[in-house]
Amino acid sequence: MLKPDQKLVIHFFEQIDKLNGKMGHAVLRYSRNPITCAIDFSHSGSSTRDLLDFGPDVPVLASVDEAVRAGGEVLVLGMAPSGGRLPPEMIAEVDKAVAVGMSVINGLHEHLGSRYPDLADGQWIWDIRREPQDLGIAWARAAGLQNRRALLVGTDMAVGKMTAGLEIWQAALKQNIRADFLATGQIGILITGKGIPLDAIRVDYACGAVEKMVMEAGDAELALVEGQGSIVHPGSSSTLPLMRGSCPTHLVLCHRAGLTHLDTV
Amino acid sequence: MLKPDQKLVIHFFEQIDKLNGKMGHAVLRYSRNPITCAIDFSHSGSSTRDLLDFGPDVPVLASVDEAVRAGGEVLVLGMAPSGGRLPPEMIAEVDKAVAVGMSVINGLHEHLGSRYPDLADGQWIWDIRREPQDLGIAWARAAGLQNRRALLVGTDMAVGKMTAGLEIWQAALKQNIRADFLATGQIGILITGKGIPLDAIRVDYACGAVEKMVMEAGDAELALVEGQGSIVHPGSSSTLPLMRGSCPTHLVLCHRAGLTHLDTV
Repeated sequence: MLKPDQKLVIHFFEQIDKLNGKMGHAVLRYSRNPITCAIDFSHSGSSTRDLLDFGPDVPVLASVDEAVRAGGEVLVLGMAPSGGRLPPEMIAEVDKAVAVGMSVINGLHEHLGSRYPDLADGQWIWDIRREPQDLGIAWARAAGLQNRRALLVGTDMAVGKMTAGLEIWQAALKQNIRADFLATGQIGILITGKGIPLDAIRVDYACGAVEKMVMEAGDAELALVEGQGSIVHPGSSSTLPLMRGSCPTHLVLCHRAGLTHLDTV
Repeated sequence: MLKPDQKLVIHFFEQIDKLNGKMGHAVLRYSRNPITCAIDFSHSGSSTRDLLDFGPDVPVLASVDEAVRAGGEVLVLGMAPSGGRLPPEMIAEVDKAVAVGMSVINGLHEHLGSRYPDLADGQWIWDIRREPQDLGIAWARAAGLQNRRALLVGTDMAVGKMTAGLEIWQAALKQNIRADFLATGQIGILITGKGIPLDAIRVDYACGAVEKMVMEAGDAELALVEGQGSIVHPGSSSTLPLMRGSCPTHLVLCHRAGLTHLDTV
């Protein structure tokens, strides 16, 4: 799948300066792969640093063709359309990219792999939000581990649970702590190359999927479990499987300063 | 799909006297459809009342062919194999039933519909555990309803949440209370003909699916929300979406008398 030297193109579909561009924003901020350019129709001609105050400064182009000419190899769908569905105009862009030989990273619930049965050698479609195989039920086995397990929780969605976890992970590694970041969402999985897309897992298997991942990381002195959802949002059901699957020894509560009411869906 | 007068055949696959036969047991106990017979290889020649102390007394036969000759029209997979997978020998039985024109009710995670693309007129495969379409996020809208919403919760799995809910429902109807039973599992859905298979719904949509169902039943004076899983079992993650989606006004806690430790997975 994704190799460390493959050059990414982040397609923002006009969300580069909006909250819905958060997948692309996180790739800009944290991916270790080289990033060739971004694509955003409404901002072509500018560069990412004209629009964002983080990440590398790369050009914002107007089309997949331009991105390929610039050396892009892997198209990352960098935005989250409302409801998780891919509108036809976005699919048309992916069609173009696949036709010219690009690989594709798709973090949305709607999968693309079956759309492209005839890929070239080395070309791939990575639908990150696929339920893993061979999941079972959880049985609080993580409680028997001797390591520290810090679960990131948040008062709202999109309040920095992943970002805080990644920052703690990096800081721990710098201190020679044998730390691991256990991704539970599409962005974290893209950045670290492993993990589980918790929100795409059926309720029956949610705790078991978390437990399996935490058990497999049992050698890490500090396992940082990426959180999902919110401890108080009525639309979020991730907190319970995360708690039960990881049996955390520590919780890190993320809150946006000044936030007094739920802000997001 | 299932019509009220269609004659059921419950295939127990040698689980008729075991806990894993609970789907078939509940059909015996609560289905309003006529039940022609049961199938269980290890007990053929006996009758259900020889083995069980509830439900109608129907013969236990040895094969699908015998069941069809006895008038059976719909095969119900009445057991839950470990891990929710259908072993090949069970699929062979379904193949036989479909070949002679029976319809099939399958409550397992593994779906069968795509296996039989060429069904006769009026023949159907009901894979109950399919995620509903058009699910969205929950927003605690149920909290705005004026009715009573009683959620069944349990200290362990298989401690009678569904049974208690069905009994309360029947008792309420007898008292002319406008009550509704909102099924969240395959057995409740089979019995009532509607509901959501909560454990087959992706974590992202779990709260929203419950909320949608509860809102649609907003006219019921008493909405009895079938529970799933357990409030303390480490493998269960259903309680949170059930609480958030239904915003219950009442909880009914089910506990098996004498139980001091978790008993089931």
